[in-house]
Amino acid sequence: MKYLFSTFLLFALFILPASAETGYELWLRYHKIQNTELLNGYLGQIKSFNVVGSSATHDVIRNELSAGLSGLLGQTFEPSTSSKASLLAGLSDEPTIAQYLSESELTQLGKEGYLVKAISQKESSRFLITAKDPVGLLYGTFHFLKLLQTNQNLASINILENPKVDIRILNHWDNLDRTSERGYAGFSIWNWHKLPDYLDQRYIDYARANASIGLNATVLTNVNANALVLTPAYLEKVKALADLFRPYGIKVYLTARFSAPIEIGGLDTADPLNSDVTNWWEEKVKEIYEHIPDFGGFLVKANSEGQPGPQNYGRSHAEGANMMADALKPFGGVVMWRAFVYSSEEPDDRAKQAYSEFNPLDGSFRPNVLVQVKNGAIDFQPREPFHPLFGAMPKTPVMMEFQITQEYLGQATQLVYLAPMWKECLDADTYVNGQGSTVSKVVDGSLHDYSITGIAGVANTGTDINWTGHPFAQANWYAFGRLAWNPDQTAQQIAEDWIRMTFNNHPKTIAALSDMMMNSWEASVNYMTPLGLHHLMGTGHHYGPAPWVSNLSRADWTPVYYHKADAFGVGFDRSENGSNAVSQYAPEVAKIFNSKDEIPEKFLLWFHHVGWDFEMNSGRTLWNELAFRYQDGVNTVRKMQEQWQSVQPKIDDERFKSVQMLLTIQEKEAVWWKDASLSYFQTFSKRPIPDKVEPPKRSLEYYQSLKFPFAPGIRPSW
Amino acid sequence: MKYLFSTFLLFALFILPASAETGYELWLRYHKIQNTELLNGYLGQIKSFNVVGSSATHDVIRNELSAGLSGLLGQTFEPSTSSKASLLAGLSDEPTIAQYLSESELTQLGKEGYLVKAISQKESSRFLITAKDPVGLLYGTFHFLKLLQTNQNLASINILENPKVDIRILNHWDNLDRTSERGYAGFSIWNWHKLPDYLDQRYIDYARANASIGLNATVLTNVNANALVLTPAYLEKVKALADLFRPYGIKVYLTARFSAPIEIGGLDTADPLNSDVTNWWEEKVKEIYEHIPDFGGFLVKANSEGQPGPQNYGRSHAEGANMMADALKPFGGVVMWRAFVYSSEEPDDRAKQAYSEFNPLDGSFRPNVLVQVKNGAIDFQPREPFHPLFGAMPKTPVMMEFQITQEYLGQATQLVYLAPMWKECLDADTYVNGQGSTVSKVVDGSLHDYSITGIAGVANTGTDINWTGHPFAQANWYAFGRLAWNPDQTAQQIAEDWIRMTFNNHPKTIAALSDMMMNSWEASVNYMTPLGLHHLMGTGHHYGPAPWVSNLSRADWTPVYYHKADAFGVGFDRSENGSNAVSQYAPEVAKIFNSKDEIPEKFLLWFHHVGWDFEMNSGRTLWNELAFRYQDGVNTVRKMQEQWQSVQPKIDDERFKSVQMLLTIQEKEAVWWKDASLSYFQTFSKRPIPDKVEPPKRSLEYYQSLKFPFAPGIRPSW
Repeated sequence: MKYLFSTFLLFALFILPASAETGYELWLRYHKIQNTELLNGYLGQIKSFNVVGSSATHDVIRNELSAGLSGLLGQTFEPSTSSKASLLAGLSDEPTIAQYLSESELTQLGKEGYLVKAISQKESSRFLITAKDPVGLLYGTFHFLKLLQTNQNLASINILENPKVDIRILNHWDNLDRTSERGYAGFSIWNWHKLPDYLDQRYIDYARANASIGLNATVLTNVNANALVLTPAYLEKVKALADLFRPYGIKVYLTARFSAPIEIGGLDTADPLNSDVTNWWEEKVKEIYEHIPDFGGFLVKANSEGQPGPQNYGRSHAEGANMMADALKPFGGVVMWRAFVYSSEEPDDRAKQAYSEFNPLDGSFRPNVLVQVKNGAIDFQPREPFHPLFGAMPKTPVMMEFQITQEYLGQATQLVYLAPMWKECLDADTYVNGQGSTVSKVVDGSLHDYSITGIAGVANTGTDINWTGHPFAQANWYAFGRLAWNPDQTAQQIAEDWIRMTFNNHPKTIAALSDMMMNSWEASVNYMTPLGLHHLMGTGHHYGPAPWVSNLSRADWTPVYYHKADAFGVGFDRSENGSNAVSQYAPEVAKIFNSKDEIPEKFLLWFHHVGWDFEMNSGRTLWNELAFRYQDGVNTVRKMQEQWQSVQPKIDDERFKSVQMLLTIQEKEAVWWKDASLSYFQTFSKRPIPDKVEPPKRSLEYYQSLKFPFAPGIRPSW
Repeated sequence: MKYLFSTFLLFALFILPASAETGYELWLRYHKIQNTELLNGYLGQIKSFNVVGSSATHDVIRNELSAGLSGLLGQTFEPSTSSKASLLAGLSDEPTIAQYLSESELTQLGKEGYLVKAISQKESSRFLITAKDPVGLLYGTFHFLKLLQTNQNLASINILENPKVDIRILNHWDNLDRTSERGYAGFSIWNWHKLPDYLDQRYIDYARANASIGLNATVLTNVNANALVLTPAYLEKVKALADLFRPYGIKVYLTARFSAPIEIGGLDTADPLNSDVTNWWEEKVKEIYEHIPDFGGFLVKANSEGQPGPQNYGRSHAEGANMMADALKPFGGVVMWRAFVYSSEEPDDRAKQAYSEFNPLDGSFRPNVLVQVKNGAIDFQPREPFHPLFGAMPKTPVMMEFQITQEYLGQATQLVYLAPMWKECLDADTYVNGQGSTVSKVVDGSLHDYSITGIAGVANTGTDINWTGHPFAQANWYAFGRLAWNPDQTAQQIAEDWIRMTFNNHPKTIAALSDMMMNSWEASVNYMTPLGLHHLMGTGHHYGPAPWVSNLSRADWTPVYYHKADAFGVGFDRSENGSNAVSQYAPEVAKIFNSKDEIPEKFLLWFHHVGWDFEMNSGRTLWNELAFRYQDGVNTVRKMQEQWQSVQPKIDDERFKSVQMLLTIQEKEAVWWKDASLSYFQTFSKRPIPDKVEPPKRSLEYYQSLKFPFAPGIRPSW
């Protein structure tokens, strides 16, 4: 009766969902404040609210304050029209509002910025939210609600915020058939079939979530694009979404398939210098703007991984991008042209290719073109040094592309908080204008005085009830928005806010969860690709370890191309003795990356082929250090499991059990990575597994035999 | 500023989701009873509950009563251990329970049956739920909760229920990649990638929902099968689901791909008479039962639509089914062998094929084989006459296959309540043993004394938060379960229970919604395929009208094959002058179907090619009647819109708006069907559109030009 026993065990795991928390609410979780002293204090301070003025966004603000205050404070709040309301929200030019604003405040307030402050009158404190534009008012509203959600003291608040980056955008790699490339939370949230007439509540809640963290743009479709989205039937559907998103300040963008003039236009070429082609795009853009007057523009992946592009016609990326930019210019649209390219010939070092192709084009793009560059030069690896194009295109707005969806970082089943990774990149010093020339200063435009700036995140949303699959993957969506608004915020502060809003304000919860989150990325690097290793994942789906794969149609798709393990050692020599990729960085940086001794060990094997007995900072040999790092990653996951267990009394049952199961999987997967990787590298190093490192459980052949025919996240063949 | 206007309009549609009802709870919606008199009455009667005994199912019952009573009665109910509890639940052989049971009650109680009754003691009324098996106790528990949900008087309840059918099973046409063939509610609810370690809360709620309506079995995988589900890695995943479902009385079945011995077994044949093949299946079945000791068995689609089968080796369906049945027999498993077959040669009349192939095999199947037959002879059309195999296989258990998912009945966007359709089939008289030989008596085994009986429904569940896409599609899942338990219940009664449990008990709600539901199917038949027309849907996806399609690779896949419209008239001649499909029915039935004058008009064009000027019962010509029916279907949808509007004050906002939008789409689609169909048929009839029928809005060419490249519900190519 073995099965009965396991059934009983399972039952210990579940309770009924009567008041279960599914996670659908995300961080906009307006549950009643538990601390009664605090609650009473807030109730004394906030008795009514008045949103002055009218627009669709004002209506959104009224609804959000109604729901937020009613939920958080446990009594019904309806909009008031009294100028004596304890919370006043309105544009800065409303007379009711203007009287409370100083010249200096008005000067400081930017287009999308907001001011949230306490205004004291005759002992009674009141609160003001204002902005120059309705969407700024909405951002301020969410900030005010966040203050309550995170249990802050309102007494003397005075917060003036402006975003540091213009275009704060999600990239959805979502196909028209609702599959989602590299999506691990189910399928696309866009139900194209039922649009434009059926407007899912999710679309509204998606817009609320984005606006609450300051995101102002979204690309609805996959960079591996389908031209059909540009046909009239689909533009009606896109328009329906754009209409819904507009009051939330979110502009809609589309991916433009370069060969669309052929596929849906009936032309026999897509040559960007052909006048039929330029006419076709001009007409198409006009048609789009007739549907969507504030359409944002195009995101384009061209001449990369099989996508068509200008090089098919002997034209440059600039010529392709400029053709589209010219069509968009009359309407204020922009082109985001991706630098993630690789040519059909196999390069000596793929890491060098984007720089090699784009650096020479600096200055030749139209002003409404941004070049969108991934954080690192390969492809969203667990850790990469910053991309050498940051700082290398002073005359061209270079925008950042981060990946929120965890393609290489644990996919559906691992808790990996990505903000520390993004911060490592944003804080990295390019030295292109001397010390302090950080990547974030490139991205926010201050280093090169860009006229337009942007930061993109490849979305991790899907049809799962909780939006992101792993409950903690919500934190990555949240953190992306927060960093896009202001890249100088800390990962720790963002994590704490998210924990408070998503779970609760108990100090033990915050301490345990923020520690788990802040350690999770380094742990994942350690148990997957420590010390600068990269691209060792399973073919196609990128699920799990496969460092042994060597027989794909292109060498630069195989793990062996990247790790180059042999009897001497391991690592890709990108020093001046190797591919010389280091030369793409500023001299100060190149010098450090070029030296086995000066380079931070976290990047060692990215830039160097290093002997197994090389002495590391720890005093261990490289081989022992490698083994130690793998084990350390596993150990950290086990500690995360303990930390999660410790907060069980403070977390609702459904989310607690969900994360508990996922951490169990993560521990298994971490051990699998360690065991498979060490078994494989040991065939080269011929050295024993050191003490304190658990020896692999199974044979290398076992790990090599594993197959995952339906691992999620793959683009279908249609 | 056109777009601002539409934005404002949209905003009238949405409010914030603070207390929104997503529909996730289905009919297990334990919200506090609104009628305070009734509530107080219940509170006086039910003060505590005691579930006597222990098993995993007993734990489920305790949880369900806790959640149900606490929610419905608005105060916390925890399980008690007092024998004086006002609600006692326990097996009939528990001494605490047995004292209240009569011999007659014990005799009447079947294996899965239950008794729910009031027991009066000294003026205080108490309630008893009992059964012989824990799962019966669970069914009784759900029945008791339903009494409260539907606001019934408990004073003298005395309900003894036994299911009329043994195997009450869902068929999920779900693929391992999570696509769902003919699914319109998102993707498969089985997350194979995260199984077996991640057990989604949905799996539990799925089991609760099924148990609440008496379903006791589920086939997890598509009839267009993938052999990989039989490999060890997937059997671990199947086991995890089976372990979860077991306490709910739900047995797991799998589809068995006939060629699995080749694809995953390394054999070079799947010939059912080859001893390597029989050995392979024997070993495979043994392996399955090692994982899942109560595994139910196999569902097989063989030699149909490209699926492999015994005929590939010159063997009969019986030889194929019996080979698998022999492997399953030692473990108590069964084979459900589908009769939905068609050979590679095109038949003169596809409607005849299943009967022609299976009728001669009656008596040659093993006792643990059931032949699974669709309700009609073509393919789940909006209306079909009952399948001639019902009654034609007295020596072989013939089980029913209904389609809950609305492949041909409005898919994602139409409110079509299917119970009246299923009832029309179940209540149809086959006359095989004289008058009163209804299909339901074939299915429940009483007509031919079958040793095993079954009824299958092709599931309509998906990843949409509300499970079924259209909120009213939940009613079809619900009604299927209720009819599988007892095919003699009425569609009206089931609809009313569902409305009360899913929305509320207000008489106006019940009146309006039940009227909408009860009229919806006939309306859909009228606006799509009136008077016996069939199979006129778009190619492949079956979305929308395409009666003009004539150029597919097989004639019997084209609409023109089925409607045979010409200058004389329209309809498929299956009379004795035509394909003589009527001869497959009992003589009493055949005689009626054979006569243009005696046949019910709803089946006229199914069996006859009828002249455009044929006089119908209404006195109209066939052409005018056809046009009238199309219009009548549209009119009914418009009435449904009004009825829905009338209950707005009584329905929560999220579900109200959702159904409102869907009815708008349904009206558009109904008009589209009418306009496209009449435009097309008019090219043959050459007669004018009659008065009171709205003329088509667009040209026939327009309707013919419409393309739906990503209509949902298609099986992917991988």
